[in-house]
Amino acid sequence: MITVDEALAHLFSLVSRLEPETVPLREAHGRVLAQDAEARRDQPPFDASSMDGYAVKRSEAVPGASFDVIGESAAGHGFDGTVNAGQAVRIFTGAPVPEGADKVVIQEDVTRDGDRITLGDRLEDKPNIRPRGDDFRIGDRVEAPRLLSPEDVALLASMNVAEVTVTRKPKVALIATGDELVMPGEDPGPDQIIASNSFGLCALLDTLGAEPRMLPIAGDTREALETAFDLAKGADLVVTIGGASVGDHDLVGAVAGDLGMDRAFYKVKMRPGKPLMAGRMGDAAMLGLPGNPVSAMVCGHIFMAPMIRVMQGLPAMPAPRLSAKLATAMPPGSPREHYMRAQVEDGTILPERSQDSGMLSVLARANALLIRPADDAPRAQGDWVDYVPI
Amino acid sequence: MITVDEALAHLFSLVSRLEPETVPLREAHGRVLAQDAEARRDQPPFDASSMDGYAVKRSEAVPGASFDVIGESAAGHGFDGTVNAGQAVRIFTGAPVPEGADKVVIQEDVTRDGDRITLGDRLEDKPNIRPRGDDFRIGDRVEAPRLLSPEDVALLASMNVAEVTVTRKPKVALIATGDELVMPGEDPGPDQIIASNSFGLCALLDTLGAEPRMLPIAGDTREALETAFDLAKGADLVVTIGGASVGDHDLVGAVAGDLGMDRAFYKVKMRPGKPLMAGRMGDAAMLGLPGNPVSAMVCGHIFMAPMIRVMQGLPAMPAPRLSAKLATAMPPGSPREHYMRAQVEDGTILPERSQDSGMLSVLARANALLIRPADDAPRAQGDWVDYVPI
Repeated sequence: MITVDEALAHLFSLVSRLEPETVPLREAHGRVLAQDAEARRDQPPFDASSMDGYAVKRSEAVPGASFDVIGESAAGHGFDGTVNAGQAVRIFTGAPVPEGADKVVIQEDVTRDGDRITLGDRLEDKPNIRPRGDDFRIGDRVEAPRLLSPEDVALLASMNVAEVTVTRKPKVALIATGDELVMPGEDPGPDQIIASNSFGLCALLDTLGAEPRMLPIAGDTREALETAFDLAKGADLVVTIGGASVGDHDLVGAVAGDLGMDRAFYKVKMRPGKPLMAGRMGDAAMLGLPGNPVSAMVCGHIFMAPMIRVMQGLPAMPAPRLSAKLATAMPPGSPREHYMRAQVEDGTILPERSQDSGMLSVLARANALLIRPADDAPRAQGDWVDYVPI
Repeated sequence: MITVDEALAHLFSLVSRLEPETVPLREAHGRVLAQDAEARRDQPPFDASSMDGYAVKRSEAVPGASFDVIGESAAGHGFDGTVNAGQAVRIFTGAPVPEGADKVVIQEDVTRDGDRITLGDRLEDKPNIRPRGDDFRIGDRVEAPRLLSPEDVALLASMNVAEVTVTRKPKVALIATGDELVMPGEDPGPDQIIASNSFGLCALLDTLGAEPRMLPIAGDTREALETAFDLAKGADLVVTIGGASVGDHDLVGAVAGDLGMDRAFYKVKMRPGKPLMAGRMGDAAMLGLPGNPVSAMVCGHIFMAPMIRVMQGLPAMPAPRLSAKLATAMPPGSPREHYMRAQVEDGTILPERSQDSGMLSVLARANALLIRPADDAPRAQGDWVDYVPI
């Protein structure tokens, strides 16, 4: 038996960053930057007003002072001349501060009469100017690797970066195995169940920014499995579901081995979960997940997702964790690391009463996997615990 | 000045749930269920073994007992006969428990010799059987409205639900306004900047499951704005960026009003942020966001995202919040509710040093908006605070 972290270290050794590709900025969100992006300009590109008001010389901005308004500076249309002593330029938020001016008096502090303005009795002290390059300067970088958020995309746009180099999407082939499986919408025989894991894992892969491909269900014969592995060619990662343990009916490992997979079984000290199978076959990495639906989805979050992130060029790390306050006490933990189905709401976390790995309805209701370390001490209500959001 | 919650209440009154549509399960993830989905079968559909082992009568499963192995039950291939006294059936995980048996002895507790098995000295007590319908029963429901997670999709598949009724995606037209704007990749004049908000907001709308459409930049003329509003026809929500305040160069409100918009300006007691504009024009709701990039993105999370969720059929609620522990003390807050750019890591949150709303680079680096209520008391390091993840 190995720990989750040890299993992850093995899995990380099977994958590496995929090749880069260039995409337009509109498609960059959710992708991982593969090459630093560089600002092509200063922002602001000029000293810019941060308020609506009047641009003047700071030294002249004293209570009661009067100025001639000699022009206007609006966003997109700056004032061409220079502000001299006794002069002011009407200015709007985001507009260039004209030459000679170094202060914007906000309009609330000004009385205007024709082309003449007079400052009020109480002036605020701030210059109300954003200096050129205050946000970023030409050559400043957004550094790779980085999973691009909507805010990153906005920043890249303002840097005048129209396309970015990102890691291409990992292609993932999903093979659900087992004579007991039929597709949703089909009419199962009395001994059959519906293939659910491949649908859940496909959706998870979508959210991770991978390119999942669901292959036809493979029955429990060598021929069916060989056909499935053949159809999986071209994938960067082949994920099998079911048949990863070592029972009599678990052909997947044997067939994959015959096809040249250098495979390993990992008995992982975790709940829920069963032995994982993993290895490399040709150009692809392979991950064999347990067929139990709850275990498959949990292992998808805990093992598959971190592998995808490494293929995208992100650091090799466990699934990201958050913290929340326990809504209830918990008895001592088990010798295996436990990923408990739980609900987080308003900063508190409540483990589900049933932790039976047969209960997909409980997993679907949950929005978190509460992590209890192996041999965890009893926990009191109000203790802070870690969880993986799902 | 109104509070954020008051502004949200006004905005919610402008939108309502859109029509439903039916989509295949493969495309259901990230959509909002518009109609309860109903299980078309029991799960498990039969009493199922939860282990690999031998199915026997529980009353006979005592240490040292022997049985004749009369057949096998595998997943997808049940055993047809009945288990009588002194008989056992080889059984695998997920397979139907044969008639007459009510206990599965795990294989680790059994010695097999030909067609004869003998139980060991120490037997575990559990039946190792998942009763029919333990997870869910025919007619059990996944209730609408619900934003469908990968786990929900797995559950729906196992219920044999091949397609689901979801709310159609909200169509959102984005209009960036201002003579100062050019598109990324273009060559800005000396007084111009790059349109960044529409790219960031488009990406945010993607993550929300909306269908954004970026319209061409509208210059500061009536004609340009009228053309833009015309191009926005057919959208469920029209979002304008810039021109939402009441400065001399803010034509958007005036033009929208002339086109029949019943508009309101909301001065919201928040930082960062400026007046919002909102109303209805024909069949569409309209939201006018400030042109400042940081304010536009923050208002996108705090105001636009909750409106989208209502259009998807989700409850009218503020942006979801999480909690984290302050990494540093903070002085007293301001009279306005403050959405501070911050970084959350390992359960602690650190506000960025610069909270200047001109700094898009700071917003992009942040992964959270730390919420300080209006007139918040000083906070100590280690205090728990709320944040909106971004």
